[in-house]
Amino acid sequence: METNRGSEGILSEEMSEKRESIVELLKTAYFMELETVMNYVTNSVNPDGVRAQEVKESVEEDIQEELGHAQQFAARIKELYGVVPGSMEFEAVQDKLQPADDQIDVVHTIKGVIDAEAGAIQHYTRIVEETEEVDPVTQDMVIAILHDEQGHMRLFEGFLREYVAEGKA
Amino acid sequence: METNRGSEGILSEEMSEKRESIVELLKTAYFMELETVMNYVTNSVNPDGVRAQEVKESVEEDIQEELGHAQQFAARIKELYGVVPGSMEFEAVQDKLQPADDQIDVVHTIKGVIDAEAGAIQHYTRIVEETEEVDPVTQDMVIAILHDEQGHMRLFEGFLREYVAEGKA
Amino acid sequence: METNRGSEGILSEEMSEKRESIVELLKTAYFMELETVMNYVTNSVNPDGVRAQEVKESVEEDIQEELGHAQQFAARIKELYGVVPGSMEFEAVQDKLQPADDQIDVVHTIKGVIDAEAGAIQHYTRIVEETEEVDPVTQDMVIAILHDEQGHMRLFEGFLREYVAEGKA
Amino acid sequence: METNRGSEGILSEEMSEKRESIVELLKTAYFMELETVMNYVTNSVNPDGVRAQEVKESVEEDIQEELGHAQQFAARIKELYGVVPGSMEFEAVQDKLQPADDQIDVVHTIKGVIDAEAGAIQHYTRIVEETEEVDPVTQDMVIAILHDEQGHMRLFEGFLREYVAEGKA
Amino acid sequence: METNRGSEGILSEEMSEKRESIVELLKTAYFMELETVMNYVTNSVNPDGVRAQEVKESVEEDIQEELGHAQQFAARIKELYGVVPGSMEFEAVQDKLQPADDQIDVVHTIKGVIDAEAGAIQHYTRIVEETEEVDPVTQDMVIAILHDEQGHMRLFEGFLREYVAEGKA
Amino acid sequence: METNRGSEGILSEEMSEKRESIVELLKTAYFMELETVMNYVTNSVNPDGVRAQEVKESVEEDIQEELGHAQQFAARIKELYGVVPGSMEFEAVQDKLQPADDQIDVVHTIKGVIDAEAGAIQHYTRIVEETEEVDPVTQDMVIAILHDEQGHMRLFEGFLREYVAEGKA
Amino acid sequence: METNRGSEGILSEEMSEKRESIVELLKTAYFMELETVMNYVTNSVNPDGVRAQEVKESVEEDIQEELGHAQQFAARIKELYGVVPGSMEFEAVQDKLQPADDQIDVVHTIKGVIDAEAGAIQHYTRIVEETEEVDPVTQDMVIAILHDEQGHMRLFEGFLREYVAEGKA
Amino acid sequence: METNRGSEGILSEEMSEKRESIVELLKTAYFMELETVMNYVTNSVNPDGVRAQEVKESVEEDIQEELGHAQQFAARIKELYGVVPGSMEFEAVQDKLQPADDQIDVVHTIKGVIDAEAGAIQHYTRIVEETEEVDPVTQDMVIAILHDEQGHMRLFEGFLREYVAEGKA
Amino acid sequence: METNRGSEGILSEEMSEKRESIVELLKTAYFMELETVMNYVTNSVNPDGVRAQEVKESVEEDIQEELGHAQQFAARIKELYGVVPGSMEFEAVQDKLQPADDQIDVVHTIKGVIDAEAGAIQHYTRIVEETEEVDPVTQDMVIAILHDEQGHMRLFEGFLREYVAEGKA
Amino acid sequence: METNRGSEGILSEEMSEKRESIVELLKTAYFMELETVMNYVTNSVNPDGVRAQEVKESVEEDIQEELGHAQQFAARIKELYGVVPGSMEFEAVQDKLQPADDQIDVVHTIKGVIDAEAGAIQHYTRIVEETEEVDPVTQDMVIAILHDEQGHMRLFEGFLREYVAEGKA
Amino acid sequence: METNRGSEGILSEEMSEKRESIVELLKTAYFMELETVMNYVTNSVNPDGVRAQEVKESVEEDIQEELGHAQQFAARIKELYGVVPGSMEFEAVQDKLQPADDQIDVVHTIKGVIDAEAGAIQHYTRIVEETEEVDPVTQDMVIAILHDEQGHMRLFEGFLREYVAEGKA
Amino acid sequence: METNRGSEGILSEEMSEKRESIVELLKTAYFMELETVMNYVTNSVNPDGVRAQEVKESVEEDIQEELGHAQQFAARIKELYGVVPGSMEFEAVQDKLQPADDQIDVVHTIKGVIDAEAGAIQHYTRIVEETEEVDPVTQDMVIAILHDEQGHMRLFEGFLREYVAEGKA
Repeated sequence: METNRGSEGILSEEMSEKRESIVELLKTAYFMELETVMNYVTNSVNPDGVRAQEVKESVEEDIQEELGHAQQFAARIKELYGVVPGSMEFEAVQDKLQPADDQIDVVHTIKGVIDAEAGAIQHYTRIVEETEEVDPVTQDMVIAILHDEQGHMRLFEGFLREYVAEGKA
Repeated sequence: METNRGSEGILSEEMSEKRESIVELLKTAYFMELETVMNYVTNSVNPDGVRAQEVKESVEEDIQEELGHAQQFAARIKELYGVVPGSMEFEAVQDKLQPADDQIDVVHTIKGVIDAEAGAIQHYTRIVEETEEVDPVTQDMVIAILHDEQGHMRLFEGFLREYVAEGKA
Repeated sequence: METNRGSEGILSEEMSEKRESIVELLKTAYFMELETVMNYVTNSVNPDGVRAQEVKESVEEDIQEELGHAQQFAARIKELYGVVPGSMEFEAVQDKLQPADDQIDVVHTIKGVIDAEAGAIQHYTRIVEETEEVDPVTQDMVIAILHDEQGHMRLFEGFLREYVAEGKA
Repeated sequence: METNRGSEGILSEEMSEKRESIVELLKTAYFMELETVMNYVTNSVNPDGVRAQEVKESVEEDIQEELGHAQQFAARIKELYGVVPGSMEFEAVQDKLQPADDQIDVVHTIKGVIDAEAGAIQHYTRIVEETEEVDPVTQDMVIAILHDEQGHMRLFEGFLREYVAEGKA
Repeated sequence: METNRGSEGILSEEMSEKRESIVELLKTAYFMELETVMNYVTNSVNPDGVRAQEVKESVEEDIQEELGHAQQFAARIKELYGVVPGSMEFEAVQDKLQPADDQIDVVHTIKGVIDAEAGAIQHYTRIVEETEEVDPVTQDMVIAILHDEQGHMRLFEGFLREYVAEGKA
Repeated sequence: METNRGSEGILSEEMSEKRESIVELLKTAYFMELETVMNYVTNSVNPDGVRAQEVKESVEEDIQEELGHAQQFAARIKELYGVVPGSMEFEAVQDKLQPADDQIDVVHTIKGVIDAEAGAIQHYTRIVEETEEVDPVTQDMVIAILHDEQGHMRLFEGFLREYVAEGKA
Repeated sequence: METNRGSEGILSEEMSEKRESIVELLKTAYFMELETVMNYVTNSVNPDGVRAQEVKESVEEDIQEELGHAQQFAARIKELYGVVPGSMEFEAVQDKLQPADDQIDVVHTIKGVIDAEAGAIQHYTRIVEETEEVDPVTQDMVIAILHDEQGHMRLFEGFLREYVAEGKA
Repeated sequence: METNRGSEGILSEEMSEKRESIVELLKTAYFMELETVMNYVTNSVNPDGVRAQEVKESVEEDIQEELGHAQQFAARIKELYGVVPGSMEFEAVQDKLQPADDQIDVVHTIKGVIDAEAGAIQHYTRIVEETEEVDPVTQDMVIAILHDEQGHMRLFEGFLREYVAEGKA
Repeated sequence: METNRGSEGILSEEMSEKRESIVELLKTAYFMELETVMNYVTNSVNPDGVRAQEVKESVEEDIQEELGHAQQFAARIKELYGVVPGSMEFEAVQDKLQPADDQIDVVHTIKGVIDAEAGAIQHYTRIVEETEEVDPVTQDMVIAILHDEQGHMRLFEGFLREYVAEGKA
Repeated sequence: METNRGSEGILSEEMSEKRESIVELLKTAYFMELETVMNYVTNSVNPDGVRAQEVKESVEEDIQEELGHAQQFAARIKELYGVVPGSMEFEAVQDKLQPADDQIDVVHTIKGVIDAEAGAIQHYTRIVEETEEVDPVTQDMVIAILHDEQGHMRLFEGFLREYVAEGKA
Repeated sequence: METNRGSEGILSEEMSEKRESIVELLKTAYFMELETVMNYVTNSVNPDGVRAQEVKESVEEDIQEELGHAQQFAARIKELYGVVPGSMEFEAVQDKLQPADDQIDVVHTIKGVIDAEAGAIQHYTRIVEETEEVDPVTQDMVIAILHDEQGHMRLFEGFLREYVAEGKA
Repeated sequence: METNRGSEGILSEEMSEKRESIVELLKTAYFMELETVMNYVTNSVNPDGVRAQEVKESVEEDIQEELGHAQQFAARIKELYGVVPGSMEFEAVQDKLQPADDQIDVVHTIKGVIDAEAGAIQHYTRIVEETEEVDPVTQDMVIAILHDEQGHMRLFEGFLREYVAEGKA
């Protein structure tokens, strides 16, 4: 294996450019997780119905997990000599996860979650590629988070299948 | 005591107008708490220094408390037949709590927290007044949250005094 | 604020008449909670079906909470120099919460819970009014219980909406 | 040992008549436990005095245990294809456990508990006999509950002896 | 009561033949539980859908309980001087609990669980009969396990009723 | 409801006079609780006898609760821009709670506790009145503490009744 | 099934003779457990060696269990209107469980445990027989204890086999 | 301070005589604690009455503590190269702690406990003296146990005073 | 690093062939773990002897760990759009882990465990290779499991060395 | 070693004079600890500033420890046949621990703590000397408390050094 | 991906040379962690001052973490067929982490920690490179440890910045 | 008892010489414990075999205890105005505790532990003598640690006896 890493790896002086590009990717990931926290609080309360209860509970349990992801991203930004951004730089993008017109429409929430998770999976897959061989610590951390998001997406895809089978989605 | 409450109080048909105006106040409170969560995660990571450590830990411990407040506001909105808003309606306002130019500048963070808490105290004081005698449940819940915020503000005012005494703020 | 409270407030000699009328209200509340305990045990076991499972679990979790309410009411009656009544004075009133003809009929249970909670909310709202400025301790305690019941009712209203939307209720 | 049990024992088709008669016995037991819960809440609050404190605490600790018994009876009724009855079918019978005229009269409470426990012991002894060789699961469950009730009765018989020895009962 | 038990009961020399026949019954029970563990892991993961979620969770919670049963059977075989069999002697029999063709078909899983539990109930009922008066320890242990299995079967029968009522099973 | 509260309520500049008068009331309350801690430690050790044991345990359990009250009062004084006083300003007033001449005289302790609790109830009732509509946070906090003290007093009144009935008090 | 039980079963007046004979059996069992506690404390300390360590730990863990058995026997004696005997009536019988001449002789301890457990198993098997159909509560309790003792004996029989295989026992 | 300790203190070759005399004292202590365990189990069950309840609970809580003392004595005997004795060497001496003629006679139990504790205090005081300057580890351990026993004796002396004051002892 | 991963990595449409081949490897791993669970239950009970106790405990502690591995494999199969197989597809292969002819032969068990772990290590090493750069999430999960298995194998290799040194293996 | 101790040591009749003089020393210690509790509550709230936070937390954590010391002193007074004094005998002496003029002056608090701890160390050192050879139980208890106080004093001496180094103290 | 791994990967016969070179790297890492444990204990006690308190606590919390790392390295050495070295092979290298001349000099400690962590990061980065593709288990373990060390170094770099800003470092 | 202690005991100015000589003894003890930690980590991993397992576990459990001792010694050095030494002053002396030539040689480890403990016992016995009457706090702390070390040594002496008996040591 050829390698041009400095003695302290990604924290080395000579790696600063690469480091900064990773920091930018992590900032985007940071805000993705925070927006998810926000919308999961919202969606753990709004929907009505017995089946919605299961969806709401799944969403509510994930709030802490997603907040934990955000905190991991923030800590890693700091470790890579970056500055964690404030709320003024936040821009909402999860348009599919906004409240439904009718709170009985739990399919709306399910699709919103799948959409948000798919976006996260794409972005984190890219971080895994970008950090290959240059920053194994970030890579390892993101792979673990990626696993969580794949699990969530697959769970909600399963939820969706039921409604599709019933002709409701 | 004169009272025009219906038999089910604030959940009654005849109270719907009052109820909607309370819901609007709660939505504002909901986003205030969520923005605080966001900026507290940021400010529990960014600052440098030994004394900053104390500030960071105070801020980090409050993240869960503030998130809990947001969840209480969300649940109350739902109980009052309102709809909890999604991230697209979120607008950042805590301009004092953005990251400092130099992460060693912990006074910046302290002032930002005081500013945010003062804003919350004003808004929650108003909710307490608005709900007087018409919605004791919301009032009781908000008084408890108000107590938390007063405690936070006073703690950070104390932090600030040290730097003022040292001529650094 | 004009006030005619004695030095020990509601426990004073001169407040005895008011105190007794509050005790009567609390006795009614006490039996309401105990009947709810009884019917929640019943309804946490009887219904059949996957969705019923969610309803049964919600009901089962509330048993302890409602029993706790009953114990709070009993303790307060004692504190106000009253005597907690025995089972011979109990009269069942929750006719909507009796077992359905078919245990698969979970809508029956949901409607029964809403009916019982609505009755409690009306009675507790009245206690909050009656204790205003004369017995803040009872008032504070009942507001907290009222909050719980509002939350339960709204949850089951949400359950009902799903069945209404499906044309089953 | 001669046995006419079907292949699934008490749950078999051919055992339905026997099963129904057991269910009836269990319903009676179910209400006995619920009335005990009710009167134990009452008697864990009403009595006055230092020695009453010991009695009140014994009674209060048993509330959870008796509620647990009620839930076991309810679950078993369901398992035996019965329907757990609602509050409208409840009839109070523990006339000895009603509040005393004077709350300082703790002997009244002690005698009431003994009376209620003796009633339970008689009924559960009968269930043990009725289920012999036909429903070992119900029998096993009821023997365990019977053990609890025997222990309670003996404890309160011991309490009573003290007052008898003092000439107060 | 006439009895020909030796002084150490089922562990006595003279009871060896009876003991061996009980051991054979326990080996069958041991493999039943292990196959259930295997299929419950499978069925706690495969099914899709919101309602399936409730079923999956019920199944997943039981994995530990069933494994515990298997360990109890293994320990009892050893106590009765038998040898617990290894995987080479295992033969799968729960053909109804194999994965469905379509993972949305949760009725398939429910029926499979009922079938497996019914088989267990029949076999354990027989053990209870066989051990009557000769091995009360095994009998007592199996009655407790039998109770668990009856409860599981009745729960899943309740699940099934919902789908039957909806015309889906 | 007419109100002249400033935007930050009781923490506002214009409320400073009212605030200071509340702080004075809280200082008195603070020392009341501390004296109670002191005398409860004393009275949880001194008395002799089996019945005294029950009294001592009641008193010992309350030590932590009363200390917690003192800490709440201290924190609130600080939040209202006051200074918590030191031991030099402390003056003992609970003359009824001093050790009895004979440690077997548990009635002495019971009466002392009732006297101290009655004094606290009077003072806290006054704080509740004084803070009405001007400082809901303090009011809410004090109502909760008032509830605790009412419960204690009623328990010890019950203890006293036993001795009265026996002609020993 | 023919039965001559009174309405309260074993606690009935007419069962007093049978009850007393059971109490005598329970007293013997009570002292057996206490002697086991005593010798297990001794044998959890005396032996030397690495393999002895495993034996000592097995023995030490059982101390609490055996003490628990003793307390169960004591409680049951009381419930059956008997009097638990004091230390003056105690007579040691476990001559095989006394300290070995050489503390390295762990086989001595193993054989002593087997001997003591075999004695317990014989006695408890007799109690199970004596209580059949007349005192199911005692029977049920003793069966559970019997199960524990069978498990202990079989474990130590296994230990012994190793030494036999090595030609040391 | 003159000292003739060897380099390893009490474990040294030259200290063997002294060590053996300490071991003899510890054996006596060991059996004292075990007899106390035995009689405390008995006395935590036998007495009748409300006040007896307080005594029984005090005694029952101490069972674990006394057993712990016995285990400490056993371990120390072993550490000093002694052999912990078995049950055959046990001789009962606590004649005052045997069951009373009438179980309502709780004074009998109280006096028995005081007598047993006084015996322990005398013996342990002697061990403290004998180990002075020669075996600080044993001394330290016994002082801590002595403290426990002094506390127990003083508590039961307090209990006794109540009955003396009532003219019952 | 050259890469042909799609935007969602291994979950992408274009990766389906690779995904299916990974799923096949995971199914084999899934059954390996389940067979290990089965044989570890068996081997945690069968062997006799003091040293066998250590082996049995090591094996018993691993049951939960191995079951957890099986559940991780099952979950990952589902996440990769596969179907977890049922018991009918299970085929036993661990012929070395079957019960020994003589239960005192613990070397038999040790060799069986080493054999089973070696097989797992080979298979998991292959999965790690196959998932390199195409499915980092599966790779990361399997590396962690591989670590566990390496640790187990090395522990049992150490056990075996003792018997080899003694000439018993 | 010459000794004139009676058979029960410090609790003996002949030791009563010595015992009383120890009781007097313990009373002083008791009030020292209670005054510390009082001033530590005060000083855990008053100071302002980031560095003050560290001091406040150290002080707050010690409140429970100091209260525990007070309770130990009280219990020992009782064990030595003394009477624990009430609040009327309390006299404040810790003049250095009163609130500073300016709450930003944390050096004031630090010096106050050192002063109070030094006083305690002197007094407890004296008790250790006075109890030498006559009351090893009290001595042992006080040595443990003395250790705590030495640790506190040294910590705050360290705090002070920082301010001295900065020229602020 | 080209690979020449044997079937059991790094544990294979053919990998022995590579394995031994990894073991050497792990031994160095093992001693680095143990020296850190040693110096962290030292530095968690020595420094004086309020700000030092924060540093000391950070260091103390890490002791367990670093010890855990050492244990992981030791276990991995064993798994790779190496022998963990003893204290005689230990050589101290962290000359920057020795005690300062003046314990008030906390900058000395901070710089020492940064120096030690930087050394660890360099060494672990090298292990990550050396194990790439040949020993993923070691690599995965070391990446996780590397993450911890990066986080520590960055925290102390932040601490240092404060002193630099104050012109003290 | 003659005494020349100053008012603050060992912390007094006039005791400085004595204090320094105690500090030197504590430094030696400090490094003894740290070397033990180091070698116990090593010896909790290296040995092979079933019986070695018991030894390894005993050693591993003691790591935390020995580390705790080291931290106690460090804290006491600081309290006595000493400076805890750094790793550069460490010199290894436990030559008997280095890894054996063959990891199957567990007797090597056992003897090494006994040798190290004996060394500690000698040194601590000396500290106990040196601190007699001048520093009871250090003495008390060291006696407790001495007790632990005596217990460890005796346990391993017991282990050794088994191998001696088998002719292997």
